[in-house]
Amino acid sequence: MNFGDVLTSAITQKSPVCVGLDPALKNLPEGITKDAKGLLTFSTGIIDAVKDVAACVKPQMAYFEALGWEGMRAFWETCAYAKLQGLLVIADGKRNDIGSTCDAYADAYLHKDSPIDALTVSPYLGSDGVKPFIERCKTNGKGIFVLVKTSNVSSGELQDLPTGDETVHEHMAQLVSSWGADLLGPESHYSSIGAVVGATYPEELKYLRSLMPNTPILIPGYGAQGGTAADVKSGFVNGNGAIVNSSRGIIFASKGKGWKEAAGKAAEKMKIELQDVLKD
Amino acid sequence: MNFGDVLTSAITQKSPVCVGLDPALKNLPEGITKDAKGLLTFSTGIIDAVKDVAACVKPQMAYFEALGWEGMRAFWETCAYAKLQGLLVIADGKRNDIGSTCDAYADAYLHKDSPIDALTVSPYLGSDGVKPFIERCKTNGKGIFVLVKTSNVSSGELQDLPTGDETVHEHMAQLVSSWGADLLGPESHYSSIGAVVGATYPEELKYLRSLMPNTPILIPGYGAQGGTAADVKSGFVNGNGAIVNSSRGIIFASKGKGWKEAAGKAAEKMKIELQDVLKD
Repeated sequence: MNFGDVLTSAITQKSPVCVGLDPALKNLPEGITKDAKGLLTFSTGIIDAVKDVAACVKPQMAYFEALGWEGMRAFWETCAYAKLQGLLVIADGKRNDIGSTCDAYADAYLHKDSPIDALTVSPYLGSDGVKPFIERCKTNGKGIFVLVKTSNVSSGELQDLPTGDETVHEHMAQLVSSWGADLLGPESHYSSIGAVVGATYPEELKYLRSLMPNTPILIPGYGAQGGTAADVKSGFVNGNGAIVNSSRGIIFASKGKGWKEAAGKAAEKMKIELQDVLKD
Repeated sequence: MNFGDVLTSAITQKSPVCVGLDPALKNLPEGITKDAKGLLTFSTGIIDAVKDVAACVKPQMAYFEALGWEGMRAFWETCAYAKLQGLLVIADGKRNDIGSTCDAYADAYLHKDSPIDALTVSPYLGSDGVKPFIERCKTNGKGIFVLVKTSNVSSGELQDLPTGDETVHEHMAQLVSSWGADLLGPESHYSSIGAVVGATYPEELKYLRSLMPNTPILIPGYGAQGGTAADVKSGFVNGNGAIVNSSRGIIFASKGKGWKEAAGKAAEKMKIELQDVLKD
């Protein structure tokens, strides 16, 4: 299978909603222990609550790594549980290194039997730090999302620098598109090599969609970071080709006893908001 | 304590040698099991062999992560062991994310009681993805090394792009220098905020040293990647201000039964090579 096809199909069948699993200890609801066991209880609870609505979950590795190797055990268990529940799993680790080391990261996260479907990748090192991941996309049916224009306030400090007729992020978009050109899904024509473009930069999103017509776009920054359904609309083509991530706005919709139900409702609300802008 | 001072002192007392712990399973010497236990046996063996010569070890997280949470347990045990043996520990994870998430990475690796002294950081997201690390440098006496010009073949694809009168990596160097300006060690005048510049780009190293006069430079790419003692010389000022990393050339100097002794000798040889070029 090709990840571009798998993702496109999941978006069609369910929605373009991706739920970010960012279990910061300080924000965990009442009754959840502030340890690795609590992380797993919380993450699997959120998965149960959103699995019928969301196409993907995106565990943010930092929050698991913050609890050392026990946190990493909870991370792997979370990924396996999500996979079993029929969700696509995007590990948000923004990994990057020189070629020989990226090979180890690719083995770590995108091996054949991994419950992880795709990994986020940071591109500062150029193509030889991305190619080992692309190899696993080819051989193991996995995907990656390469950072192009990130959702944070200071993303422009490097990404918006002008270089000739274009910005760094536009240059990066063209690299990502070229890296993915050999990996288009036979059904969807979307590549296994995706890009990350923040919901907080709607103008850039619109232009980047045109620069990368076959690239699936992971759009973070919805909700708590300020992105709206209208902001992400231009990332889509006929209702597909993009997934929109919300983390805090869904998983911490309530910190009381009804946190699961509140998360499910928040995911459903986001699905409807997106459907409303995408139907036009 | 200030990490710039601690590093400078370790270089003076021992050497500018940093030994990269890159325990790729396929390269482990005979007699070492190809699992997380083997990783720890190998890493602690290398630490024993080089501890009197090297100022630092640099565990490359990818090789530990490749063995899942058990690999991460071996990673933390390796860091703790190196610390006990009097080595500075630079965790090579090239972590990066938006501010709130970087806060979790900073908690994970640079908390007060962490055996890790410094972490490598990838800068594609700009300053708000670096500031949480800088905070921990300030409050917990830790350090970071931010990627500026990496040692790999394709590093120029992004890092050498021209932007106005300078390249992306020169622009990044100035950002790193400014981020570190408030964190100069009172004794050494070197900052806790360091930079990564590859030994494989000696011309760039020379210029970047002049752009970042108070920034300690971590120079990877020595040995197996092609960098020589002559190549790294311009990273130093009066024999200090830089550490040079060799991984494969030291840790896999022999894959036979004498691997520990061979690693010790290779580290000693590197120390002498560096002393020879730095004494002029």
